[in-house]
Amino acid sequence: MQWVKVLGGMVGATALLGLGIILGHFAIPKGANVPAPSVSQDLDLEILETVMQQLDASRIRENLRELSREPHLASSPRDEALVQLLLQRWQDPESGLDAAEAPAYEVLLSFPSQEQPNLVAVVSPTGSVVFSCRQSEQNLTGEQAGPDVVPPYAAYAPPGTPQGLLVYANRGTEEDFMNLQTQGIKLEGTIALTRYGGAGRGAKAVNAAKYGVAGVLVYTDPADINDGQSSANETFPNSWRLPPSGVERGSYYEYFGDPLTPYLPANPSSFRLDPDAAPGFPPIPAQPIGFDDAKILLCNLQGPTAPAAWQGALGCDYRLGPGFRSDGDFPAGSQVNVSVHNRRELRNSSNVLGIIRGAVEPDRYVLYGNHRDSWVHGAVDPSSGTAVLLELSRVLGTLLKKGTWRPRRSIVFASWGAEEFGLIGSTEFTEEFFSKLQERTVAYINVDISVFANATLRAQGTPPVQSVIFAATKQIPAPSPVGLSIYDNWIRYSNRSSPAYGVVPSLGSLGAGSDYAPFIHFLGVSSMDIAYTYDRSKTSARIYPTYHTAFDTFGYVDKFVDPGFSSHQAVARTAGSVLLRLSDSLFLPLNVSDYGETLRSFLQAAQQNLGGLLEQHSISLGRLVTAVEKFEAAAAALEQHRSVLQKGSPDPLQVRMLNDQLMLLERTFLNPRAFPEERYYSHVLWAPRTSSVATFPGLANACSQAMNTSLGSEAWAEVRRQLSILVVALEGAAATLRPVADL
Amino acid sequence: MQWVKVLGGMVGATALLGLGIILGHFAIPKGANVPAPSVSQDLDLEILETVMQQLDASRIRENLRELSREPHLASSPRDEALVQLLLQRWQDPESGLDAAEAPAYEVLLSFPSQEQPNLVAVVSPTGSVVFSCRQSEQNLTGEQAGPDVVPPYAAYAPPGTPQGLLVYANRGTEEDFMNLQTQGIKLEGTIALTRYGGAGRGAKAVNAAKYGVAGVLVYTDPADINDGQSSANETFPNSWRLPPSGVERGSYYEYFGDPLTPYLPANPSSFRLDPDAAPGFPPIPAQPIGFDDAKILLCNLQGPTAPAAWQGALGCDYRLGPGFRSDGDFPAGSQVNVSVHNRRELRNSSNVLGIIRGAVEPDRYVLYGNHRDSWVHGAVDPSSGTAVLLELSRVLGTLLKKGTWRPRRSIVFASWGAEEFGLIGSTEFTEEFFSKLQERTVAYINVDISVFANATLRAQGTPPVQSVIFAATKQIPAPSPVGLSIYDNWIRYSNRSSPAYGVVPSLGSLGAGSDYAPFIHFLGVSSMDIAYTYDRSKTSARIYPTYHTAFDTFGYVDKFVDPGFSSHQAVARTAGSVLLRLSDSLFLPLNVSDYGETLRSFLQAAQQNLGGLLEQHSISLGRLVTAVEKFEAAAAALEQHRSVLQKGSPDPLQVRMLNDQLMLLERTFLNPRAFPEERYYSHVLWAPRTSSVATFPGLANACSQAMNTSLGSEAWAEVRRQLSILVVALEGAAATLRPVADL
Repeated sequence: MQWVKVLGGMVGATALLGLGIILGHFAIPKGANVPAPSVSQDLDLEILETVMQQLDASRIRENLRELSREPHLASSPRDEALVQLLLQRWQDPESGLDAAEAPAYEVLLSFPSQEQPNLVAVVSPTGSVVFSCRQSEQNLTGEQAGPDVVPPYAAYAPPGTPQGLLVYANRGTEEDFMNLQTQGIKLEGTIALTRYGGAGRGAKAVNAAKYGVAGVLVYTDPADINDGQSSANETFPNSWRLPPSGVERGSYYEYFGDPLTPYLPANPSSFRLDPDAAPGFPPIPAQPIGFDDAKILLCNLQGPTAPAAWQGALGCDYRLGPGFRSDGDFPAGSQVNVSVHNRRELRNSSNVLGIIRGAVEPDRYVLYGNHRDSWVHGAVDPSSGTAVLLELSRVLGTLLKKGTWRPRRSIVFASWGAEEFGLIGSTEFTEEFFSKLQERTVAYINVDISVFANATLRAQGTPPVQSVIFAATKQIPAPSPVGLSIYDNWIRYSNRSSPAYGVVPSLGSLGAGSDYAPFIHFLGVSSMDIAYTYDRSKTSARIYPTYHTAFDTFGYVDKFVDPGFSSHQAVARTAGSVLLRLSDSLFLPLNVSDYGETLRSFLQAAQQNLGGLLEQHSISLGRLVTAVEKFEAAAAALEQHRSVLQKGSPDPLQVRMLNDQLMLLERTFLNPRAFPEERYYSHVLWAPRTSSVATFPGLANACSQAMNTSLGSEAWAEVRRQLSILVVALEGAAATLRPVADL
Repeated sequence: MQWVKVLGGMVGATALLGLGIILGHFAIPKGANVPAPSVSQDLDLEILETVMQQLDASRIRENLRELSREPHLASSPRDEALVQLLLQRWQDPESGLDAAEAPAYEVLLSFPSQEQPNLVAVVSPTGSVVFSCRQSEQNLTGEQAGPDVVPPYAAYAPPGTPQGLLVYANRGTEEDFMNLQTQGIKLEGTIALTRYGGAGRGAKAVNAAKYGVAGVLVYTDPADINDGQSSANETFPNSWRLPPSGVERGSYYEYFGDPLTPYLPANPSSFRLDPDAAPGFPPIPAQPIGFDDAKILLCNLQGPTAPAAWQGALGCDYRLGPGFRSDGDFPAGSQVNVSVHNRRELRNSSNVLGIIRGAVEPDRYVLYGNHRDSWVHGAVDPSSGTAVLLELSRVLGTLLKKGTWRPRRSIVFASWGAEEFGLIGSTEFTEEFFSKLQERTVAYINVDISVFANATLRAQGTPPVQSVIFAATKQIPAPSPVGLSIYDNWIRYSNRSSPAYGVVPSLGSLGAGSDYAPFIHFLGVSSMDIAYTYDRSKTSARIYPTYHTAFDTFGYVDKFVDPGFSSHQAVARTAGSVLLRLSDSLFLPLNVSDYGETLRSFLQAAQQNLGGLLEQHSISLGRLVTAVEKFEAAAAALEQHRSVLQKGSPDPLQVRMLNDQLMLLERTFLNPRAFPEERYYSHVLWAPRTSSVATFPGLANACSQAMNTSLGSEAWAEVRRQLSILVVALEGAAATLRPVADL
């Protein structure tokens, strides 16, 4: 055991400070008699099985009860208390990690004013308030009225008190407003009532402002969240459905990361943009309301009947406005006043980081994270994930402290701050440690909401993680039906036909909905998000109904979402197994050939959907075809090389070299100059797409911009530029996979 | 020997294709009985000594004779013939490398028209040509008149035939033109005669155009190149000095890399900018001339006498113009006509790449390169470097083919194309293989001109390479004086006082003068440039006098620059020793603490030169100080860790992890968003600086922009942004050096 010898020779000669540093560097287990690390240390299936057994549903339930006991909005005292709770757990001598800390960033958040609550009111032509929307949700379980329950608001919406005639603008997409304009609805100076879904929160305000709308209201239609049901006795606390007063809070900021420090960590002395000039904030006041209030506003509208697709389940004909009908509840000519008094404030928000140092390759990191901050109690979002995180870290920490186990690679657990405001904690972390993380991170596992519902696993990720998720889920029993593995159950709900494997569960792709976004888009780290979710044959709800409301409580989870917490346990086991496989396997369980399948399907979609258009403009996809073929060939050869090595007893450097190829593949798809307008997005395969066809985003977006322009336009030049960027990225990826000493 | 076992189990099961791939992957020496690679393989001092002994001055001389036998302008038939020569050498069964190839790019070059030669003439008011400058250099050695000698021209200067009164504009800097304007010299529509030096070639035309100048002439003043001497009998072929008709050719393009494919490899189907809209070309026609012609023009000027600092050695009072004096050689009112007929053309230009596969870590590359293309015969530039490259590859190839040696890491030799037009071949290479090279390259060694003169070594590089150059040069005898090492001789000519080491030779910093530029600025690879150079007490020449002229011939080198080729041999030994140390040492011989010394000196310069100004604007350098301290502490601890490991017998992964920290340090200083206007420059420490003070370039440049603006200006925001970028980079660098499992 090498380090003993080294230390022996050293103590006399070296100062104690140096000794401390070296000890840290060698990742020596603390107070534990772990077996000497061997360079060929591999996944131990017995340890894996032990971990699976020890992940305990009732402990997850207790974690959740504690985590969601009080509202813990980002930077609030309770959020800070949870930072301490996490630190305490991760520093526990019996079940903690090797080290834990809680670095804070100074970030720009947005809160409603306590002195001047936001208000939505109907004002008669004489100026009298004839109706006011509720300013808080109904106190149905005794948990909705506390001082720490933040009233519903649209974070980062600017203060202002616009007043105007009400119009109904469906989901507030660009098309929706264009449609209204086409129908002759005068939008200038109106207040637009929109429903959640279709467009992002902030996008509704951005789109509205383009048409001169003065303020935006947003509500959740029972058609979209409750499968149409809306009465009090059909909704929480009588079912899992959204009560009439429930309001979805959320961030209306367009980008992610701290708004004032793009690409720089938000340290106190960091350069900050002028808050009044920083981009990405909604241009006009916005406020979310409950569907009880929305119903009163919407069902009193005059004007043409809204299109069938715009109708919802509020029990009246939705009309477009502008203004209320004269035979309704309000005096003719009544307007809607939206009073928003939000304030942006610099606040300290902490991440909590805990590490288990790797025994053999401590410089390879498997990251596992979730955010900690919620809008209110956040039992589902995010505490269902944090409850799993704490249980997993407890089980692994216990093995670690007992000396039973230490992973081959380092494991970093993270509890991110201020995710709800725009993935802020995780983004600042990636900005601060960009190089180190990009050099060393094997994969990022995100478990935000761990259980949306208890029907089936749902996983999103980049292609290389598919195989490790499959391997893990094949070995874990599903909570139900008895006898099926999580994998077998998953495939029943969501599957696709893979050219290589036949029918397999369908792995979703990653957008930017949680903290994986900076890891995949900015760092180029293979990432995944794991949860249990709905039976889509039983509900068409946009998301679990109490999302971002004061009804997302422990009781809600315990009674409706996952009684018995078996789905939480299933997610803990899945994520835990994936984590152990990534941290402990001698050969990284990342399958690069699976990227070939994605590229091939993107290529086919591009050929089908864009090929004709491109041909008309004399742009050939030939080089793209060749690049995909090169990638496939290089990936297949690399997998073959892996299998040969696995059958032999390769030297540790041969394994490391192969693993580096596997780890770094995702990085090769980054091009920081590909999408200069899209902050942080540099992954040429997963940047946002404007069309719904799953294909190469840069190429597809550029085509849709160019489509109606002339041949020599800038837009067509951009199509050709995007095609080149893509080809170079794929060829660069293939070059990384080819034998390392090939020219 | 592990691979034998693996192959045994494999042959039955695997197709031959797979076998080939695996063989390549394992980097098995070809037809050689090299000892089985050991994961602890280290530098073999006997091999090193053998290489030093075998590097043969007379073979370098013969290489140079062949390489410089004919002009070999980029993409010319002779340039292509040299591609074949290199391939043949590197594929030689007795002394070649493992593999070699010659990939071509399609790049935009610029040539004078053969049908319409460029011409500079004096035209009388009646329109008659009263004087013409020579259109080619004098045929002094029989080598200046061949059909392949490209006439002097300013590559990429646009075609045009401006005519106007002549002015003298010194070196064509912005200050020079401002000075002329201040003196009341009307510049609009003039032809500006400038001398080389002070500003970049293209910058002279850019600066001139800002003042309405219509055309630019450039010459080399004997004061700047010949220590004042100018007569035929004082110059080549009677001495090493520039003959009166000699003209420095050169690229007038402002950036580097293929002008039409920034950030993309110039493959035939790559997206290209519109050549008429692409940035970086000189805005007005320009043409270089010899000092014999310049003398006739300049000594006939009228107007005020030029400032003392603008005077040269042409034997007359330099006056500013505009126009010629009436009592001179030309009719009163005569103008100068500059006829430029350059054409830009897409041409194929090849790099030649050769590899020696590493025995143990084939995925770590030490790159060694030089360009191949010249302006004319290019005996000094670049063939003196290529002659060394070929001798070094011969010696190593012979050891390799004999089975005596195989390096621990892979060695890649490169002969770059089209460097003279703007580092094009090397830049396209870094664009094509960006990810793979950034992940794996240990260092880049550039030996362009290997011998400027035979007095002393001159090395430029980033701080981590200082120690390996010192180690190498201490072991190699200087060509003269007898008994001194190259190191001991070097320190006599150029030294500085290092806080850590006392007096040491002075390592220069890297600009963008040769093919190292894309490696250091774009890839962030530790780089160096090595040559033998002048005794500055004996000459003040800007550069060796026949630079970029038709007089840079084999005879010139053989007779004047390095008779006996002992300086060539000294450079071959130095570069060869550095190469072997980098490729073969178990621990990478890159010293990261030496970066601390640079940072400390940059910091002190910033405090002294910018501290007061910043304080006036309430900008504190405190966080920068802390960041430098963090870097120093982390670097010192890492060096201590290295020394502990070196004393023990560390496992191969411990060494690899440390080496990765050393290798990747340079990458951590990159920020592709730091200097959006400066193409390819992303290294926050080595980007171009506008001031002469050696300090942090982004901060210093931003300060000089902001200096005269008001407190709330954009320019001051940029100062604060640059300071944050710098602090984040230094803290990121320190994070990379800290123990790898520290949070």
